[in-house]
Amino acid sequence: MAKTQGQRSRITTDLDFNADGKQIGYLRLPHSVHRSAYGFLAMPIAIIKNGKGPTVLSMSGNHGDEYEGQIANSKLIRGLNPKDMKGTVIVLPMANFPAAQAGMRTSPIDQGNLNRTFPGDPNGTPTWMISHFIETELMPRADLVLDLHSGGSSLNYIPSALARMGGDKKRDAKIKALLEAFAAPISYVTTALGENRTSTAAAERAGTTIIGTELGGKGTVDIDGTKVAVNGVRGILEHMGIVKETDITRKRPKTRIMEVKDVSYYVYAPHPGLFEPVVKLGATVKKGQTAGFVHFMDDPGREPVEVKFNTNGLVLCERIPGKIERGDCLFHLASDVK
Amino acid sequence: MAKTQGQRSRITTDLDFNADGKQIGYLRLPHSVHRSAYGFLAMPIAIIKNGKGPTVLSMSGNHGDEYEGQIANSKLIRGLNPKDMKGTVIVLPMANFPAAQAGMRTSPIDQGNLNRTFPGDPNGTPTWMISHFIETELMPRADLVLDLHSGGSSLNYIPSALARMGGDKKRDAKIKALLEAFAAPISYVTTALGENRTSTAAAERAGTTIIGTELGGKGTVDIDGTKVAVNGVRGILEHMGIVKETDITRKRPKTRIMEVKDVSYYVYAPHPGLFEPVVKLGATVKKGQTAGFVHFMDDPGREPVEVKFNTNGLVLCERIPGKIERGDCLFHLASDVK
Amino acid sequence: MAKTQGQRSRITTDLDFNADGKQIGYLRLPHSVHRSAYGFLAMPIAIIKNGKGPTVLSMSGNHGDEYEGQIANSKLIRGLNPKDMKGTVIVLPMANFPAAQAGMRTSPIDQGNLNRTFPGDPNGTPTWMISHFIETELMPRADLVLDLHSGGSSLNYIPSALARMGGDKKRDAKIKALLEAFAAPISYVTTALGENRTSTAAAERAGTTIIGTELGGKGTVDIDGTKVAVNGVRGILEHMGIVKETDITRKRPKTRIMEVKDVSYYVYAPHPGLFEPVVKLGATVKKGQTAGFVHFMDDPGREPVEVKFNTNGLVLCERIPGKIERGDCLFHLASDVK
Amino acid sequence: MAKTQGQRSRITTDLDFNADGKQIGYLRLPHSVHRSAYGFLAMPIAIIKNGKGPTVLSMSGNHGDEYEGQIANSKLIRGLNPKDMKGTVIVLPMANFPAAQAGMRTSPIDQGNLNRTFPGDPNGTPTWMISHFIETELMPRADLVLDLHSGGSSLNYIPSALARMGGDKKRDAKIKALLEAFAAPISYVTTALGENRTSTAAAERAGTTIIGTELGGKGTVDIDGTKVAVNGVRGILEHMGIVKETDITRKRPKTRIMEVKDVSYYVYAPHPGLFEPVVKLGATVKKGQTAGFVHFMDDPGREPVEVKFNTNGLVLCERIPGKIERGDCLFHLASDVK
Amino acid sequence: MAKTQGQRSRITTDLDFNADGKQIGYLRLPHSVHRSAYGFLAMPIAIIKNGKGPTVLSMSGNHGDEYEGQIANSKLIRGLNPKDMKGTVIVLPMANFPAAQAGMRTSPIDQGNLNRTFPGDPNGTPTWMISHFIETELMPRADLVLDLHSGGSSLNYIPSALARMGGDKKRDAKIKALLEAFAAPISYVTTALGENRTSTAAAERAGTTIIGTELGGKGTVDIDGTKVAVNGVRGILEHMGIVKETDITRKRPKTRIMEVKDVSYYVYAPHPGLFEPVVKLGATVKKGQTAGFVHFMDDPGREPVEVKFNTNGLVLCERIPGKIERGDCLFHLASDVK
Amino acid sequence: MAKTQGQRSRITTDLDFNADGKQIGYLRLPHSVHRSAYGFLAMPIAIIKNGKGPTVLSMSGNHGDEYEGQIANSKLIRGLNPKDMKGTVIVLPMANFPAAQAGMRTSPIDQGNLNRTFPGDPNGTPTWMISHFIETELMPRADLVLDLHSGGSSLNYIPSALARMGGDKKRDAKIKALLEAFAAPISYVTTALGENRTSTAAAERAGTTIIGTELGGKGTVDIDGTKVAVNGVRGILEHMGIVKETDITRKRPKTRIMEVKDVSYYVYAPHPGLFEPVVKLGATVKKGQTAGFVHFMDDPGREPVEVKFNTNGLVLCERIPGKIERGDCLFHLASDVK
Repeated sequence: MAKTQGQRSRITTDLDFNADGKQIGYLRLPHSVHRSAYGFLAMPIAIIKNGKGPTVLSMSGNHGDEYEGQIANSKLIRGLNPKDMKGTVIVLPMANFPAAQAGMRTSPIDQGNLNRTFPGDPNGTPTWMISHFIETELMPRADLVLDLHSGGSSLNYIPSALARMGGDKKRDAKIKALLEAFAAPISYVTTALGENRTSTAAAERAGTTIIGTELGGKGTVDIDGTKVAVNGVRGILEHMGIVKETDITRKRPKTRIMEVKDVSYYVYAPHPGLFEPVVKLGATVKKGQTAGFVHFMDDPGREPVEVKFNTNGLVLCERIPGKIERGDCLFHLASDVK
Repeated sequence: MAKTQGQRSRITTDLDFNADGKQIGYLRLPHSVHRSAYGFLAMPIAIIKNGKGPTVLSMSGNHGDEYEGQIANSKLIRGLNPKDMKGTVIVLPMANFPAAQAGMRTSPIDQGNLNRTFPGDPNGTPTWMISHFIETELMPRADLVLDLHSGGSSLNYIPSALARMGGDKKRDAKIKALLEAFAAPISYVTTALGENRTSTAAAERAGTTIIGTELGGKGTVDIDGTKVAVNGVRGILEHMGIVKETDITRKRPKTRIMEVKDVSYYVYAPHPGLFEPVVKLGATVKKGQTAGFVHFMDDPGREPVEVKFNTNGLVLCERIPGKIERGDCLFHLASDVK
Repeated sequence: MAKTQGQRSRITTDLDFNADGKQIGYLRLPHSVHRSAYGFLAMPIAIIKNGKGPTVLSMSGNHGDEYEGQIANSKLIRGLNPKDMKGTVIVLPMANFPAAQAGMRTSPIDQGNLNRTFPGDPNGTPTWMISHFIETELMPRADLVLDLHSGGSSLNYIPSALARMGGDKKRDAKIKALLEAFAAPISYVTTALGENRTSTAAAERAGTTIIGTELGGKGTVDIDGTKVAVNGVRGILEHMGIVKETDITRKRPKTRIMEVKDVSYYVYAPHPGLFEPVVKLGATVKKGQTAGFVHFMDDPGREPVEVKFNTNGLVLCERIPGKIERGDCLFHLASDVK
Repeated sequence: MAKTQGQRSRITTDLDFNADGKQIGYLRLPHSVHRSAYGFLAMPIAIIKNGKGPTVLSMSGNHGDEYEGQIANSKLIRGLNPKDMKGTVIVLPMANFPAAQAGMRTSPIDQGNLNRTFPGDPNGTPTWMISHFIETELMPRADLVLDLHSGGSSLNYIPSALARMGGDKKRDAKIKALLEAFAAPISYVTTALGENRTSTAAAERAGTTIIGTELGGKGTVDIDGTKVAVNGVRGILEHMGIVKETDITRKRPKTRIMEVKDVSYYVYAPHPGLFEPVVKLGATVKKGQTAGFVHFMDDPGREPVEVKFNTNGLVLCERIPGKIERGDCLFHLASDVK
Repeated sequence: MAKTQGQRSRITTDLDFNADGKQIGYLRLPHSVHRSAYGFLAMPIAIIKNGKGPTVLSMSGNHGDEYEGQIANSKLIRGLNPKDMKGTVIVLPMANFPAAQAGMRTSPIDQGNLNRTFPGDPNGTPTWMISHFIETELMPRADLVLDLHSGGSSLNYIPSALARMGGDKKRDAKIKALLEAFAAPISYVTTALGENRTSTAAAERAGTTIIGTELGGKGTVDIDGTKVAVNGVRGILEHMGIVKETDITRKRPKTRIMEVKDVSYYVYAPHPGLFEPVVKLGATVKKGQTAGFVHFMDDPGREPVEVKFNTNGLVLCERIPGKIERGDCLFHLASDVK
Repeated sequence: MAKTQGQRSRITTDLDFNADGKQIGYLRLPHSVHRSAYGFLAMPIAIIKNGKGPTVLSMSGNHGDEYEGQIANSKLIRGLNPKDMKGTVIVLPMANFPAAQAGMRTSPIDQGNLNRTFPGDPNGTPTWMISHFIETELMPRADLVLDLHSGGSSLNYIPSALARMGGDKKRDAKIKALLEAFAAPISYVTTALGENRTSTAAAERAGTTIIGTELGGKGTVDIDGTKVAVNGVRGILEHMGIVKETDITRKRPKTRIMEVKDVSYYVYAPHPGLFEPVVKLGATVKKGQTAGFVHFMDDPGREPVEVKFNTNGLVLCERIPGKIERGDCLFHLASDVK
């Protein structure tokens, strides 16, 4: 629960959540600092609405250096015509605005990783104020939340969608249909909730449905990942009945449903050093196979340490920066759902 | 010329440049600072020698976040047996040692970009002391210098070798043979000297020959680029007659000789923003073709600005980080030598 | 409520709140850090007391770069003679001590803006410890709290006093009399409580009365604002019956009672850039009138964006630093109470 | 109480607290940051166990720049043979791991002073996560906790052990026996609990017993302090019956039991400046005796300010860094228990 | 002389200094750093030319936080029509571009104060590259250089123009006519060259004439100073015959010619502390008159130290930030030329 | 030679080097920065003179965290009476003023280590301006220079004096007499000039004589070292005939003359880690004897690495901070001159 109870968000906006048409504007997050005693952080937001119908909240920039979803949301804001819609699309393209401005995973103001701060705090520093606003003001309005992530600066993913399936058949079928509508090359599911400070946990607390993505990474705007994002968001809006079906949806590729089961799917650095991988993204690997080597560059006679995979699977995600610390995630795998 | 004339380098080493065998040790760069009044920076170096023969200086880590050459040199140090050699290999795996320790292009101590500091300064800050040492103490000992670069954190290259051909037929033929021996997928040549503060300019001042590379990038250890580096260094040592010919050389692929002619081969950012590329590494493009778009994420209603290529060519290099400032290089091209 | 309940402040002092005479000393805020394992922050405080009578707490340095009140309190500490008094004056000249030491709005230790931290936290970082101490230890002792603010580094004000009038006639009359006693050129009132983390909200929670000021700004010691502060504090002490009436009070100027009604009184930056104002402090403006222009200096061909006032009023406050971010407050207005 | 209630620690480990033998490994503290999206901080831990018997938790690095205990625990991990034991020793050598890695009192990640954060917060920044883990997961397993401190970078101590005696005769006798088993040259006791955010308070909340130390300081590894630590830990394990008695215990020196009564035992800096002490560690001083002088180096004609002791006693602790701020602790004394 | 001799500037531009018309573009200052291996800093420049005639170089942003001239130059670039001109105007609105981007006096990249770096260094860090470019490439093209300064963040001036008169009657008359054409309220002259690293010294080395200004300050865009700047630049262009005479020139106010003779005209802080001035900008003061007081806020019982003027004069310039260090300039005076 | 030739120092002072009496004041080092456009750094200096006689320059704070000499010079300034003198004493107590203000070895402004910057640069950053001033303006006035160093924050010395003896018998005898006059417990001599950027090299270039010291360290004010400094300076002034002989000189202890011959006297860290010394300051050691161990705290199962002495000698100097990097000096020895 938010640390400060009974306090509404101090974030405001001039936009009207109930007005038809396309509104592009800003959330005002009060931020009184040395360089601006009465200033606010101006966080971009768009509300595109036409009459009654479902509401989709499409957010990106939860981590500021994950760009594919930000580009897709930017195109969505400019491209979506209220006349062609039924319902509401709320677009929050730079969710952790200070992080997205800086191109960082975390906020340069308070070091907050937005996806580890839900349910936030209305009296906290900006990242906590933002997660509190999203969980208490935006998510309750949405029938569906899209939270468009990528690998960011430190990771690289095969473009994927992801969601939690908890075993409730009806809900799981709904989730599966959404993943098929998004139509990423891979969709992976988890069965446990895990960390309760993420947007996923927040959406469940807020009583709505959420679909996430991992659309590339490397701190760049991945061309393929951006295409998956643009088509995926369109596919979701069509699936929700907000916009009409187009070729994008009719010809959409079939997604491969996989799962990431447990910690054995992850490979972590056993030593600090320089990591030389020997396996590429998309490869199929076996338990015990060499993943790579940790080199000790400042001790040039010392033999590198071999790193191995702990289970069988497909290499879904790889670390990018060569320099590593003990405990960095080097790879993670996925396996087909049987 | 070095800012301080007539002063020898203050960098020392316990290693003996004239001794046969494999010596792995450190250069001692005096560095008297708050945390260590009498300390030195311990820069790895190896001297592997057997009798008479040519001398090759293989350096990497000129930019600290360019890792493929560092891995190749690290393997070279451990793998090369003096018994199998004739001549000398000097390996300087982390040339700008503080930068390589930090995984940064430039030194965290003095912000120096080593490859913009030659001929250095024996009385300067560490980066300038290092370039002065390399130009005055290491290069004069070498018949050939390898300076193994990659794209680093901000760029990504098709693995390439590069060199300057100045029009002197004999010298150019020698250079071409070296590029063929290195056998990168692409070798590109320039005809003008350009910037006179690089290792290339330094090597020419020191009266030796130099071959450079661009072996990948993205701030990671590229698997393909590392392979090219390892085989390329071996190929060069075989070509120089220091080690015997092996399958690596006998079956080496043919390199494609290209050139980067002038500033029209480069695409620069016309605005700060978030760059969405639409063309991939390795593509062949035409003058006037769209290279990508600059998005203004904090001004979500503003149309992106289109960026175009200025000439025809092959996309040899792409920028990685999505966030851009006006003046950042987004792409550069190469064209086949006719 | 403070995050940690049931914990008394860890801030102590050797001074005796009940002793007659003038005591000048320090609050001890425990601060165990690398450079001083057992150190405390020594926050200046003075207690000047003679027998029975009302207690006034005069604080300044709530924001460390607001100096007029700090100078006035500094003169008060040295100039006030207990023999000439009846009652108690507690002076806290550098309320957010680390911020005031640094000349910053916010604390360099924890980035805290003291006036956004009430009711504080006895277990928090220094800024939260201070607001907790003020709300739980100092304010309950006071019949009246003066919190002497100015525009600080980013704003500039016509010297003003301010207070909240809530509609309770008796209380409002008392407040009005206090504003007249302070006798700033302008006094402005607000009717809603607004932000609940300020000294105003804290004083109301602590069951005491509070008067604030805005006495100049620009990060300097304003000559006029300092005079208003010195005379205003004296006027208040006379009004409270703690010291005898002097010429200052008998000849005090009449204050102009104004109000700042709502968000339309504020002008915010619509773009980042360099702001050129065209209206001076003290001007009377109309709704729709040009306030200034945002220039895009790094894009020199781009036309500046005009900024307008949203309502009629007197320019009470102006932004100082030329560089602006979207959301910075550029001006705020006041209008006469009718 | 921890700020977030009802949440278990997010710190995990592969080690088995119930398995016999010597396990050396890591705690995994999830830490998702820009350079490593899925990384964890790898905090060293060892569990050395043989059958049934008491459990001792030996922690050090609570403050990262206090090294004597870290060295002793490092030797303990490598030197202790499960075959020679009965019971369990849990060793946490770098309790505030990021601080200990950096050689700082406080964490470079969140500036946390671990010993001011108990009972911590499972949702907090790393220092708060660590104190929460220690209080909720480690301390409840222990019959005795050793928390090995030293003076660190800013202080220097005569090697001492310390504990709280509350007046409960049975408990106090047990504590005294433990101090005698540790056998530091000096053992000093306090009677009040004081600060409730320390490991001492945490251990009492967790229902276990705790012994602390101050084993030297100056930010160095003190030779005498390290010897006291190594022998003291051994002495405690023998006293607890986990290992057999050796010469260390049989010939252990007698500890001198002293006390630090109140704030008069401490000398604080009355001014910022450069402190010249005139009394050495271990000296016996009288109330009113000169402790040293504060020099005003940038005002070279100004007379230094004399600083005096406030009570009689033995100089147990001295400040190291010459530069001082008002409020820094310069000395503290101890007196024999009568 | 520049540290590196015989090396031309590495700064380039696509603009043609010899082409008629209005060209708005960028200088390219190569800047190879971690975030952009092949990037350049894009420094705005405009060349506005029509046929033959004199050349004026109008620069601003020599110090990045001096904005009045930047605004005037920004308006000049957009407002000047080549058709209405005879000759050339080169506008360099953000001379120390990184400083002007940051709104700082000095460059955030290399801490360079551009006006203390002439003649610069083509191999230096950006500030030194810029001063070298200005002195070797821009100034030699100009018949007149305008270098538009203000007080910046730390000072505030009565809007003034300034120049050096060396005693050469013809040259001094020319300078006087230029000052009258600029028509600032005050023009002050100096007779000695003084510091040889300024734009003034550079212009003399480059064989051209230079007029400077001090147009306000406080780190803001001063309304009056901006008006003086806009009219002054216009007046100069009319005086030079580049544009036709307008009302601005025909009705221009008469400037008051004053002088700043020696160090006695300056008042410096004798102690660190908080400075309370008692004299306003524009006042006429006498030698020995009180200028203000230094307060010791953290030592609240200590008497403030009085500061006095050392000579008679008009207060031309005042310090803005209240916090001072020993040696800060608090005021400087001017006196009428007799 | 200084980088900028033919330029006199820009540092000035109001003090008169030729006036009799005691003058305490400041050097003015122009330092134009964002917070103070026209400010100077005020470096304390004192000139104490009476008639004709030799001139001694006593400097300290060459490294800002070496305090014993600073305290001694501070006492000298206040304690020396011109009436009791013949000749001149110039005292520069905080030679690298910004470093001494900060308590750092190197300057926080430009990271300069003053003792690696001679002969400095009149156009450089502050540290270079200072060394240039000392070498060109102060040293040429002095018959003898005292440069009072200590071990500083990273080292600890047995209080010592030191000087260079070059083999010139007359000069060496003079040096020896000075060392005996200073009368530190140990005096050590070197025979080679070594580093040419130190005050020693500067003094030789300036044609004067210099005696150095190492008076303690640990970043504290060492009581014994301070006593040696105070008596040593007095002894030198007596020896030079500036003041009359006192008991200090008549009863001065005999200094032990030792030497530090070559690099074998130094022990350097072979690995980064935590260093546990096993030998104390003042011990006599043998070649091959264990000096200590490097512990790998984050790899708790890894065996520490032993470090040995490379020659016989007395432990004159030890490293203080426990955390080490490869290349840090851990100890250095001295041996008796035979």
